[in-house]
Amino acid sequence: MRARPQVPPATVARLPAYLRTLDVLAAEGHLLTSSEELATRAGVQSALLRKDLSFLGTYGRRGVGYDVPHLREQIGRVLGVAVPQRLVVVGVGNLGRALAGYAGIAQRGFTLVGLVDVAPDVVGTVVAGLQVRPLEALAELVAVQGATIGVITTPPSAAQHVADLLVAAGVTGILTFAPAVLHVPDDVDVRSVDVASELQILAFHGHGRRRAVDGEGA
Amino acid sequence: MRARPQVPPATVARLPAYLRTLDVLAAEGHLLTSSEELATRAGVQSALLRKDLSFLGTYGRRGVGYDVPHLREQIGRVLGVAVPQRLVVVGVGNLGRALAGYAGIAQRGFTLVGLVDVAPDVVGTVVAGLQVRPLEALAELVAVQGATIGVITTPPSAAQHVADLLVAAGVTGILTFAPAVLHVPDDVDVRSVDVASELQILAFHGHGRRRAVDGEGA
Repeated sequence: MRARPQVPPATVARLPAYLRTLDVLAAEGHLLTSSEELATRAGVQSALLRKDLSFLGTYGRRGVGYDVPHLREQIGRVLGVAVPQRLVVVGVGNLGRALAGYAGIAQRGFTLVGLVDVAPDVVGTVVAGLQVRPLEALAELVAVQGATIGVITTPPSAAQHVADLLVAAGVTGILTFAPAVLHVPDDVDVRSVDVASELQILAFHGHGRRRAVDGEGA
Repeated sequence: MRARPQVPPATVARLPAYLRTLDVLAAEGHLLTSSEELATRAGVQSALLRKDLSFLGTYGRRGVGYDVPHLREQIGRVLGVAVPQRLVVVGVGNLGRALAGYAGIAQRGFTLVGLVDVAPDVVGTVVAGLQVRPLEALAELVAVQGATIGVITTPPSAAQHVADLLVAAGVTGILTFAPAVLHVPDDVDVRSVDVASELQILAFHGHGRRRAVDGEGA
């Protein structure tokens, strides 16, 4: 068996954008693409793109470029999305519903297999074709459905408890939208999306810009 | 006028987590905190925390620690959230509604001042207390309301057009949830949240883990 390529984390973080761009190129009917075109569309420098793809053992052919279907398949395989990943979402509020109804998840290789909530008036309702299950059913749901990723959209106060339950149930990855730090074992990956933090980072930059402008006018 | 401290981008990106942690400490009634406690709760090493805060000119007092209200106020001022930032959200689908109803935005210094959509059956409806306006009203809305940040929750095919309109209207920052690369002038900041990319990065790590386990069993 050939060894799995060692791909640096920064490269892994850019692969989804390349795959998304290749999906668009394929939908437009392109069979070949240049590193310049792929890089521009993905928003990176072409030298960086070529370096990233070299970690996958892929080099474009001079004067020909990259084979779009082959490169899609290769990046998809490295990312593990060739095998559909199964998700459970815990927390069926506004955000949980938005994720359950988001077509982009299915388009990019993920299958939502379960929705879980604690609220008695939410449990039992049907959202995006799935009946919402109580928190007590989470472990069984993960096991029976073979879910590998848990998505947490609960309030921050509940997030660590839910993460503990997901880890015990055997997921290997957690995506959390709750603004709280999660403590999990080393063999579980956590990705965190905090909308308010993103806004605060934008506010920092905008604040500096306006102060600079004010300063010029003073 | 004292010069604005030069704060490295990586430090800026961690400040929201510190502020969030200080908010929790304050809500629990703490007036003082140690670098160890603040760091553990924020999920970073205490040496990194002390270094980050030193860029703000803040040093904890040995044996006493950090003054919670003072540090909150200081980080808030650096992030520019002491002055409430005004947001418009373009795209009132599931995700736009989830953001409009998200209490965490207001709690962390942001005011939603406008919702915009193109769909005739959505324009004119009231969501989170705001009447949804048509895309043609975006420029006026940004100007009249003094919005500084635009949030894009449209399909990817519409995102660049919306970004162009937001930039022309004068926002200084854009937070986009659309899986598409946006091209904007250098003086506008873009932060991008792509849920499917986050899932693909988790899939990559989980995939490697399962293959390693399979290999051991073979």
